[in-house]
Amino acid sequence: MKALQYTRIGSHPEVVEIATPSPGPGQVLLKVTAAGVCHSDEYVMGLSEEEYTAAGYPLPLTLGHEGAGIVAEIGEGVEHVAVGDAVAVYGPWGCGRCHNCAQGKENYCTNAAAEGIKPPGLGAPGSMAEYMIVDSARHLVPLGDLDPVENVSLTDAGLTPYHAIKTSLPKLRAGSTAVVIGTGGLGHVAIQILRAVSAATVIALDITEEKLALAAEVGAHHTVLSDADAAAKIRELTGGRGADAVFDFVGAEPTIATAVAAAATDADVTIVGIGGGTAHVGFGTIAFDAAVRIPYWGSRSELVEVLDLARTGQVGVEVQRYTLDQGAEAYEALAAGTVRGRAVIVP
Amino acid sequence: MKALQYTRIGSHPEVVEIATPSPGPGQVLLKVTAAGVCHSDEYVMGLSEEEYTAAGYPLPLTLGHEGAGIVAEIGEGVEHVAVGDAVAVYGPWGCGRCHNCAQGKENYCTNAAAEGIKPPGLGAPGSMAEYMIVDSARHLVPLGDLDPVENVSLTDAGLTPYHAIKTSLPKLRAGSTAVVIGTGGLGHVAIQILRAVSAATVIALDITEEKLALAAEVGAHHTVLSDADAAAKIRELTGGRGADAVFDFVGAEPTIATAVAAAATDADVTIVGIGGGTAHVGFGTIAFDAAVRIPYWGSRSELVEVLDLARTGQVGVEVQRYTLDQGAEAYEALAAGTVRGRAVIVP
Amino acid sequence: MKALQYTRIGSHPEVVEIATPSPGPGQVLLKVTAAGVCHSDEYVMGLSEEEYTAAGYPLPLTLGHEGAGIVAEIGEGVEHVAVGDAVAVYGPWGCGRCHNCAQGKENYCTNAAAEGIKPPGLGAPGSMAEYMIVDSARHLVPLGDLDPVENVSLTDAGLTPYHAIKTSLPKLRAGSTAVVIGTGGLGHVAIQILRAVSAATVIALDITEEKLALAAEVGAHHTVLSDADAAAKIRELTGGRGADAVFDFVGAEPTIATAVAAAATDADVTIVGIGGGTAHVGFGTIAFDAAVRIPYWGSRSELVEVLDLARTGQVGVEVQRYTLDQGAEAYEALAAGTVRGRAVIVP
Amino acid sequence: MKALQYTRIGSHPEVVEIATPSPGPGQVLLKVTAAGVCHSDEYVMGLSEEEYTAAGYPLPLTLGHEGAGIVAEIGEGVEHVAVGDAVAVYGPWGCGRCHNCAQGKENYCTNAAAEGIKPPGLGAPGSMAEYMIVDSARHLVPLGDLDPVENVSLTDAGLTPYHAIKTSLPKLRAGSTAVVIGTGGLGHVAIQILRAVSAATVIALDITEEKLALAAEVGAHHTVLSDADAAAKIRELTGGRGADAVFDFVGAEPTIATAVAAAATDADVTIVGIGGGTAHVGFGTIAFDAAVRIPYWGSRSELVEVLDLARTGQVGVEVQRYTLDQGAEAYEALAAGTVRGRAVIVP
Repeated sequence: MKALQYTRIGSHPEVVEIATPSPGPGQVLLKVTAAGVCHSDEYVMGLSEEEYTAAGYPLPLTLGHEGAGIVAEIGEGVEHVAVGDAVAVYGPWGCGRCHNCAQGKENYCTNAAAEGIKPPGLGAPGSMAEYMIVDSARHLVPLGDLDPVENVSLTDAGLTPYHAIKTSLPKLRAGSTAVVIGTGGLGHVAIQILRAVSAATVIALDITEEKLALAAEVGAHHTVLSDADAAAKIRELTGGRGADAVFDFVGAEPTIATAVAAAATDADVTIVGIGGGTAHVGFGTIAFDAAVRIPYWGSRSELVEVLDLARTGQVGVEVQRYTLDQGAEAYEALAAGTVRGRAVIVP
Repeated sequence: MKALQYTRIGSHPEVVEIATPSPGPGQVLLKVTAAGVCHSDEYVMGLSEEEYTAAGYPLPLTLGHEGAGIVAEIGEGVEHVAVGDAVAVYGPWGCGRCHNCAQGKENYCTNAAAEGIKPPGLGAPGSMAEYMIVDSARHLVPLGDLDPVENVSLTDAGLTPYHAIKTSLPKLRAGSTAVVIGTGGLGHVAIQILRAVSAATVIALDITEEKLALAAEVGAHHTVLSDADAAAKIRELTGGRGADAVFDFVGAEPTIATAVAAAATDADVTIVGIGGGTAHVGFGTIAFDAAVRIPYWGSRSELVEVLDLARTGQVGVEVQRYTLDQGAEAYEALAAGTVRGRAVIVP
Repeated sequence: MKALQYTRIGSHPEVVEIATPSPGPGQVLLKVTAAGVCHSDEYVMGLSEEEYTAAGYPLPLTLGHEGAGIVAEIGEGVEHVAVGDAVAVYGPWGCGRCHNCAQGKENYCTNAAAEGIKPPGLGAPGSMAEYMIVDSARHLVPLGDLDPVENVSLTDAGLTPYHAIKTSLPKLRAGSTAVVIGTGGLGHVAIQILRAVSAATVIALDITEEKLALAAEVGAHHTVLSDADAAAKIRELTGGRGADAVFDFVGAEPTIATAVAAAATDADVTIVGIGGGTAHVGFGTIAFDAAVRIPYWGSRSELVEVLDLARTGQVGVEVQRYTLDQGAEAYEALAAGTVRGRAVIVP
Repeated sequence: MKALQYTRIGSHPEVVEIATPSPGPGQVLLKVTAAGVCHSDEYVMGLSEEEYTAAGYPLPLTLGHEGAGIVAEIGEGVEHVAVGDAVAVYGPWGCGRCHNCAQGKENYCTNAAAEGIKPPGLGAPGSMAEYMIVDSARHLVPLGDLDPVENVSLTDAGLTPYHAIKTSLPKLRAGSTAVVIGTGGLGHVAIQILRAVSAATVIALDITEEKLALAAEVGAHHTVLSDADAAAKIRELTGGRGADAVFDFVGAEPTIATAVAAAATDADVTIVGIGGGTAHVGFGTIAFDAAVRIPYWGSRSELVEVLDLARTGQVGVEVQRYTLDQGAEAYEALAAGTVRGRAVIVP
C-alpha cells in the first residue's frame, strides 16, 4: 500500500510503497478515509537529528495523527466492532489501565513513556496511508453519518481546543469573555466550540484581516489585530476587567504576553500553540489566581463530545483536500500559512 | 401612593392608597418601574387562613417579588448607589452573614426563618406599588440600559431556571439532552438559557400545540405533547438513553412521573413548579444516580449572570403589560392560563 | 476446580466441581485469593424464579462479585500484565467504549444491557471459585503488597461508598456534617472514607449499641440509635441546620424517612441499601435543593483511589474468614446480621 | 487609645496615642482582643517611598490585617450583631456588590481599586490598636468560644492557604500528593488543613531541620530539605509521577523552580509567598496541564470554614504573644525568622 512517510531528518515527507499490515489480537485494521495535516508534524519534522532521536521518534515514520476510516479487518478477541464500521481514531494512546487512562485521559497516561506507547503518526504508523492499524478497539469512536473528510480534524484540531475549553468551562459563565489567539486550524474550531458550549463573548485575535474575517464568520463577536495593543483592547472591550479565559493557539512570546496581560482575576490562560514562547508568572506580573497551563490533546469522552457537536451542526471544520501524493504539498501550504482552516489528505 | 395588596384571605388583590415609605439607615427607596406577576403569588393567595398564618405571611400584603426601579432616595450609610440609578431587585433576602449568605446564596439563608426575614412581596412590602423599600444596597443589581418592563421577570422567572440549569451544567455536555416541562413564564426562559449556556439538545413539553409553538420559537429543538407517552418519546429521541437533565416547571403528579421516567443514568431531575406532585425515588423506580431535587429561586451572582444574558440578547421574556389598577385582572389571566410568557405590572 | 454456585431458585448456594476455564484472546485467568460476600447476592438469591429470569441471571451462577487473585495465565493480545501479578477485580464490567465507559464509569455502561454484559458473580462466573476469568486486563487493578483477604471487599464494600462520597465531596466542606445510616459491611468503610477524604463531622446511625461501638471505633464522631427520633437528634447536633450529606446503607422505609428529614438545604441524600424503601420528594417534604439519588457501584479510577486509601492505612475492613466449603454458612451469617464488618471467602 | 503605626517610610512601626474612633451608620466598633503579625506588613514597610505612594498606602498607617475583637458599639442600621459578640474580622474588604463580592469573594472585588476600598491594616486603620472600626457587619465572623489570640491568625495565615487548598481540592484525591514549601506562619497551617480536608500524602519542604520538625509535628508525612535536589526527592517519593498540588509559601526563584519541577501532569502549582520569584511556563518546561497561579487571601465563606476547622480541633496555630508596646520587636523577630508559627499582638 501507499504511505506518506518522513524518511530522513530534514527532508520532505514522501510517498512510499509498504506492505499492508495485518491486525494482531485486539487490534483493528482500518481502510483510511481521511487523514489530517497538523502543525505538530511540522514541529516534529523540524527537530534536529539529536532532538528527534531523544524524543524517541522512529525513521521512517508514517505520518498522520488525525485519522478516520472504515473497519477492514478485526483481530482476535475484538468485540463490539464490525467490518464496515465508519470510525474516527482517538490518537493519544495510553496503557488503558493507569489512574488517568482509567478515566479515558490517555493523553496523560503515566505509563506511556516507560512502556514506549506512542500515538499513530507520532511514533506508531499513522493515518497517512491506505490502511492503518489501531492498537485497540477502545481507540475507535463511531463516526456514523459524519463525513470523514470534513470531520477527521476534530480528532486533534477539534479535541485539543475542546479539552482546553472544557477545563475552563466553570470560568465561562454568562457575562464572561473568552479570547482566542490564532484563528487557524485549531482556533477557528475553538471559536465555534466556545459559542456552542457557553454564553461567553468571544474575542478573536490574529495578524491579518483575512484570518479575522474567517473568525467572524465562524462566530467571534469581536475581532482584534494581534499586536502590542491587543491586551489593552481586550481590557477596553471588557470594561477593564479582562478576559475570563484566554486560549493561545500560537504560543509565541508576544502572543503569550498578550494572553497574560489580558487575563482577568481568577481567569484561565491556556497555551496550546507550540510557538516557543514562555509565560512569566510572578507577583504583580499577572492577575491574582489567573492560572497558566499548557495542555496536550484531550480525553476519550471529550472526543465523543466534540463529534457530537459536529453531529448537531454546532461545529464544522474548514477543509482543503489533498491526495496522498500531494502530501508534501499540503505540508508546504501549512508552513506557508496559506491553508484556510485545515488541510486533509484523502487516500 | 398606590399599592396592590392582598388584604383578606380568599379575596382578590386590590389597589389601595398607603403612605409612601422612607428609607432607614442602609435602606434604599425605589420608584418602581416594573413588577412581575408570578404563580407563587397565586399559591400564597390560595392558602387557607390557617396555612397562611402558619407560613408567617402578614395581612395586608403588598404583592410583587419581581421588581425593578429607579433609586429615589438612599438611607444613611448607603454607599456606591446614587439617586437615579436603574436597578433590579434581588428578591430572596437573607441575613447577609451566614455561610450561605456569605456566598450570595441568600435564597438559602440559614437565619432568615429565625430572624423573620422575608422577601418583598412575600412578607416584606413588595414591588406592586409606586415605591418600595429595599432593605440593603446589596440586594440591588444594576440594570443599565436594559428595559425594566421587559426584564423585570428575570429576577424570578429568569433567576429560578438559571439557578436550576447552572446546578445541572456539568451534566449538560456536548451531545446531552435537556427536557423542559411547562413552557410558560419560567419554562420559555429556561429554553433560552439552555440554548445560551450549553450545547444540549432541548426537548420541550407542554399540553397544547400553541404553547409548544412558543417553545419552538424561543429555541427548543424538539417539542412533545406532555401526556402519558411523553417519557417514551424522550427515550426515542435520545436513542434510549433518556435525558441528562429534566426541569419540571409544572410539578404536578403526572409531569413529575414523566420527569422521573425520562431521566438517564446520572441525570438531574429538578422540580421547580409547585403543582402538588411528588417524586417517588426507590431502587428500580428511577435510573441510577439520577438526582431529584426541588430548588428555590437563586443566588445574587446568578442574577447578575442572567441579566448579562439579557444584555447580550441571549434571553428575552415574552411580556404582557398591565397597569397597577389592572393587577387583579393580571392574576386572573395567569390563573386562566392565557398569559403568553409573563405578565408585568407597570405602575 | 471447586466453585460456590447458586444452582436452583430458592436453594442455598453449594460447592460444585467444574472445569477450570482457559483465557481467550484479551482475557486473563486469575487464581482467586479472596472473594467477598455481599448483601446483593442475598438480594439476587431472594428473587422469585420469574424475577430472576427477567433480570437475566443464569443458572447455575458462580457467585462472587468482589474478587482478588494472582494472574495465572494471560490470553493472546494481553499486554502490561504478567503471570504472578497480584490484582483486584473491577466488577461492574461494561463495553469499554461508550461515553460513560470512556471515562471508566463502566458501572453506567449504556451498552451493557443490550449486549448482555454482566459482572462476575452477577451473571458472568464470579470469584467464589479456585479460578476465575476476567474478560479484559482493564478490569484488573494492581494490589501490590495489600493483603487480598483484608482488602478484597474494597472492590464493592469500599468502592460503592467511595463513589457515593466522592459525588458528595463538594458538599462536605470544613464545618459540614455527614450521616451514615447502617454501619455494617459498607457503612463501617464509609465512615473511614469520610474521615480520610473530608473534614466533615460524621454521625453514625444503627439499631444496636454493639454496631454503634464499631462505628465509633472506626471514626464516627457521634453515634445515634436509628429510630423515629434520629432525624431530630441530627438536627440538634447540627444546630438545627441538618446534615450536608446522608448515606443510607439500609434503604428501608424508616431509614429513608430519617435521611430525608435530616437533610439540610442543598444537601445530598444517597440511598445505597436495597431495603425496599422509597423517598418521597415533593414541595415541603424535603429541604430545598436536597438531592436524592440511588447510586450503583463505582468507576475504575475510584477503585484505584479506594485501594490507595488502604495502602496509606486510612481505610481498613473488618473481615471474617470462611473457606469455600463454608460459603453457605457465610451467607447465613450475613442474613442473620452476625457478621462484624465483612465476610470473605478464601478458596 | 494606643495604636501601632507605620509613620515614616523606612522606619520601624511605633506605638502612638490616637483618638478612639466612633462607628458611623452600618459600621461596627471592636475592642481588639488580638492582632496577627504578617510578612505582608514587612513587604509593605519595605517599599520605597515611590512604590508605597503608588500603591496608595497612607501615612501614618495603623497596622494589622488580622484582627479579632469584642463588639463595643454598633452604628445605625446594623442588625444581627450585638455589643459583646466575639468576632473575627474578614480582612479583604470589597464593595459587596460586584459579581465577585456577590459570591463573598471580596478579595477579588472588581471595584475596590477604583473606589479606594482597602483592607484594615493595609490602607484602612488596622487591628493593632485598642479599638478598630469594621466598615460593615458582613465583615465579621462569629468566634464563639474560640480563643481570639490562638485563632486570630486564621483570618489570613489560615484563610490564605485554605483558599489555595480549596481551589486544588479536586486534584487532591485519595492517593494524591501535596507539597508545602515553607513551613512557617502559613505553611504550618497549610499542612494541617491538607490533612483535615483531604487524603493526600503531604510532603513538607523547608531549609532547616528545626522547621521541618514543626512540619512533622503538625502532620506532614514526609519532610525534605528545600534545596536543589528537592524536586528529585519528590519525584522519588511519588514513584516518578510528581506532586498533584504544590503550595509555595516562600515564592523565591529557587522554591518556585522546585515547585514547577515537582508538579505532576494536571497538577496545581500555587505561589503564595511574595519572595520575588517567577515561574517560567513554556512547552517542555513544566508538565502538561499543570496550572500555575498566584492567589490572594480568600473568600468570606472560606473564613467561616477555616474557623470551623479550628472549632473541631483540626487546625491550630503555633502562637507567640507580644503586647502592643512590643510590636516593633515582633516584626524584628519575624524578619529574623525566629518566630515559631505566628506572632500575635494582644493589646
